[in-house]
Amino acid sequence: MKHKSVGFPRPEQTEAVFYEAFMHADIDVMAAIWSVEQALCVHPGSDLISGYKAVIRSWQHIHDQEARSEISFKLLNKIETETMSVHLTKEIIKTVDHELMVVISTNIFQKMEKGWQMVQHHGSLVQQHDATGQTLQ
Amino acid sequence: MKHKSVGFPRPEQTEAVFYEAFMHADIDVMAAIWSVEQALCVHPGSDLISGYKAVIRSWQHIHDQEARSEISFKLLNKIETETMSVHLTKEIIKTVDHELMVVISTNIFQKMEKGWQMVQHHGSLVQQHDATGQTLQ
Repeated sequence: MKHKSVGFPRPEQTEAVFYEAFMHADIDVMAAIWSVEQALCVHPGSDLISGYKAVIRSWQHIHDQEARSEISFKLLNKIETETMSVHLTKEIIKTVDHELMVVISTNIFQKMEKGWQMVQHHGSLVQQHDATGQTLQ
Repeated sequence: MKHKSVGFPRPEQTEAVFYEAFMHADIDVMAAIWSVEQALCVHPGSDLISGYKAVIRSWQHIHDQEARSEISFKLLNKIETETMSVHLTKEIIKTVDHELMVVISTNIFQKMEKGWQMVQHHGSLVQQHDATGQTLQ
């Protein structure tokens, strides 16, 4: 794994590259856009994964599964301050078995020296069989 | 439901009151600490719930289920700017059937005129049977 840290002038650019890396299982690009100083990740059903190395390892693990064939995402909401940007996205993931998974994610970006980098990702699966909208929380 | 909007001098105080309201199923307090202008919520397994009225209705729905007997929470991480505070918490929820549920939540607070108010809550259940840590994302 090459180590190159990059940031972008706008958080939307970082997010687009994040989803590109996810879709193409490109761990070098994924590793480049995450902040080395501050990295926190919750995958659907997972506990908190804390720290840059553990977060990148978790993405490597997801990439290795090769259970996805297509990912698209839509930005649902954005709250922004000068140095922090909080995005809510809806991810539509098509598996190799042609199943559709819908994931809601909170993506958080911070303005670093190199530009906007990813510092937090929290994804949760939308239970589509739950037509009543009921959750136990 | 009474309508009273309150904020606190510190986001930690707003979060403590949020969990108090959740634990005691107190919809008036819950309604008071959410921002009326900006409210977004994702419960475990749910899609995005957008807008103050829909968010408070979703909490009313959760309160009505009475499936909880005890809730505790621990602050895992905090990222803060002058006007926005992003908290990651671990919630331990004991149901009336003595089951334990673990939820990781991203709670977001903004500094409003009245003080710090809740603007976003994203909770996801930790799948405890998944000993391999595998997720499909």
